[in-house]
Amino acid sequence: MPQIVPVILCGGSGTRLWPRSRAAMPKPFLPLVGDTTLFEASLARCPADLGFSAPVVVTGTRHLDHVEAQLSGAPGATVIVEPAARNTAAAIALAACRLPDDAVMLVCPSDHHIGRPDVFAEAASAAAALASEGWLVSFGIEATAPETGFGYLKRGDAIEGTTGFRTAQFVEKPDLERAKSFLADGGYAWNGGIFAFRVGDFMAELSAHRPEIAAKVREAVEKGASDSHRFHPDAATFAAVPSDSVDYAVMENTSRAAMVPADMDWSDIGNWQALHDALERDESGNSVRGSGEAELVDCRNVLVDSDGPRVSVIGLDNVIVVVDGNEVLVTTAEGVQKVGKLNGAVNQ
Amino acid sequence: MPQIVPVILCGGSGTRLWPRSRAAMPKPFLPLVGDTTLFEASLARCPADLGFSAPVVVTGTRHLDHVEAQLSGAPGATVIVEPAARNTAAAIALAACRLPDDAVMLVCPSDHHIGRPDVFAEAASAAAALASEGWLVSFGIEATAPETGFGYLKRGDAIEGTTGFRTAQFVEKPDLERAKSFLADGGYAWNGGIFAFRVGDFMAELSAHRPEIAAKVREAVEKGASDSHRFHPDAATFAAVPSDSVDYAVMENTSRAAMVPADMDWSDIGNWQALHDALERDESGNSVRGSGEAELVDCRNVLVDSDGPRVSVIGLDNVIVVVDGNEVLVTTAEGVQKVGKLNGAVNQ
Repeated sequence: MPQIVPVILCGGSGTRLWPRSRAAMPKPFLPLVGDTTLFEASLARCPADLGFSAPVVVTGTRHLDHVEAQLSGAPGATVIVEPAARNTAAAIALAACRLPDDAVMLVCPSDHHIGRPDVFAEAASAAAALASEGWLVSFGIEATAPETGFGYLKRGDAIEGTTGFRTAQFVEKPDLERAKSFLADGGYAWNGGIFAFRVGDFMAELSAHRPEIAAKVREAVEKGASDSHRFHPDAATFAAVPSDSVDYAVMENTSRAAMVPADMDWSDIGNWQALHDALERDESGNSVRGSGEAELVDCRNVLVDSDGPRVSVIGLDNVIVVVDGNEVLVTTAEGVQKVGKLNGAVNQ
Repeated sequence: MPQIVPVILCGGSGTRLWPRSRAAMPKPFLPLVGDTTLFEASLARCPADLGFSAPVVVTGTRHLDHVEAQLSGAPGATVIVEPAARNTAAAIALAACRLPDDAVMLVCPSDHHIGRPDVFAEAASAAAALASEGWLVSFGIEATAPETGFGYLKRGDAIEGTTGFRTAQFVEKPDLERAKSFLADGGYAWNGGIFAFRVGDFMAELSAHRPEIAAKVREAVEKGASDSHRFHPDAATFAAVPSDSVDYAVMENTSRAAMVPADMDWSDIGNWQALHDALERDESGNSVRGSGEAELVDCRNVLVDSDGPRVSVIGLDNVIVVVDGNEVLVTTAEGVQKVGKLNGAVNQ
């Protein structure tokens, strides 16, 4: 079994879980499901006793304080501090350039929820085995609904002697009709942005398909400087790196794309309804989280999340109520898609 | 035209507008509709230039500070401070015992909204004229819905030469079916607790039907003491006064009950939906009040009332959101009847 180095990507800052998630305290660093934050849970899924090395966290200066405050569960972790945001191809390349060619990277977002970490670990092991044989491996997350917010992976031929498959096609976010046909077909999985790559193979593919990204990142790392467990790529060089996703830059171009199936109760917690779906509910389908008290009368499938004030709700179904500091959000389950466009979310 | 003395009753403390209305800051003293409080508006409806004397306010010790803080619009007002709550018969009798027998009292609750004060003034004038002829007059408020929360007045024969009618019957709060039949019949009006009495007649009827109330209140006033514009009935004597409503004690027993019709856009603001109905709405039927900002997306007939935090609402119809200090209330229009039973309302 190769050594697996978790590469935890900690970038971006969504507005879809506003007002709980804010620019100043984004989603990965909040204890949205259970007592640990999504970032802490990402680290905890890759423990040493399952063969994982100390993780490499790639993050920006804006999130650095949050990362370091929540890093205690991952001894030996290092942090690569991006001087600017250049999307996932560059972020992964930064980690790759600091690792030996034969190491296997397990690239994980830090803001997803995985309900079955045991299945994650099994899939990670299978993906790493494939990666060490030269495949560029995506986790193919079992699709359980016709989601239009995710990209899909089309399953190709089985790879003999493994649980993996070739990836026949990367499909961008579909419309509802196509999403439904994918679900009915059964041969499609969600692309959750979890990958396993042998470092040398990843850099070779990146150099082949996006030579400028590969070259500039290499240069930024060569000119970079360490500071205790932190590594700072050269800012001026990194600023010149083209911004591209790993899907576009590498996965859609390589001839060695593979996928391992993973039915691991995954959620990107991409909006308030997704969070509600990931939480435990009472017999009426209601969930209460946060530090505030709640009283629900004649309610079904209501989520209340308050950071202090008591929330009393009467007579509502499929509604989400969030209280965070000076903001109160009340939305239907369908309305959650519009949260990111609210004045409060846009002008924070 | 006789002199009309407004007798403003300022008692009780409901829980149906919780959390905005609280035990410590009850409904009459809040600016629920427009910029003035319901109490201030009650005073303002009885100005000197329409022939009203300075008002007499009857209130309890608990509300005294609020009353005095909001009394500046009524020069010459006096305040009778009830040492205990003994319902409306005793409260009105307290005022009566301090007025000359031939004065006409216009008894008004202080927690109702009247959208057309001009109609109120006309009805008051008509009621006072009838009262000065010996009638005990109720305002018969035009019923506009089959309300089950109000008592009703059944209209009897017209009183010749006036706009008034004999009151054929006092009907207690009906069930929905009866309320609908009253509305269809057209001969029923809401009893809003607004009355005109000649002082001597009121005390004579009270003495006839509830002699103990009349006697004990007289004694409490005789043994009472003035303190600037305040009058304090004797506490020990007043404590012994039987508690009864003016409807039960006097109106249902007198043979001289009359009513004047009043179509004055009246509301008792008896719950959050009633308040919403009394407020101005935008083209989507939404209302925003309070000092907090609000953003309503895809909403219809939503009321937002916040004392500070911004409230963002998506996709809801017929819902009321109230933010007050450490309490947040979210209820359907139908749910407003249950507000008073919420833990927050009960345990305040």
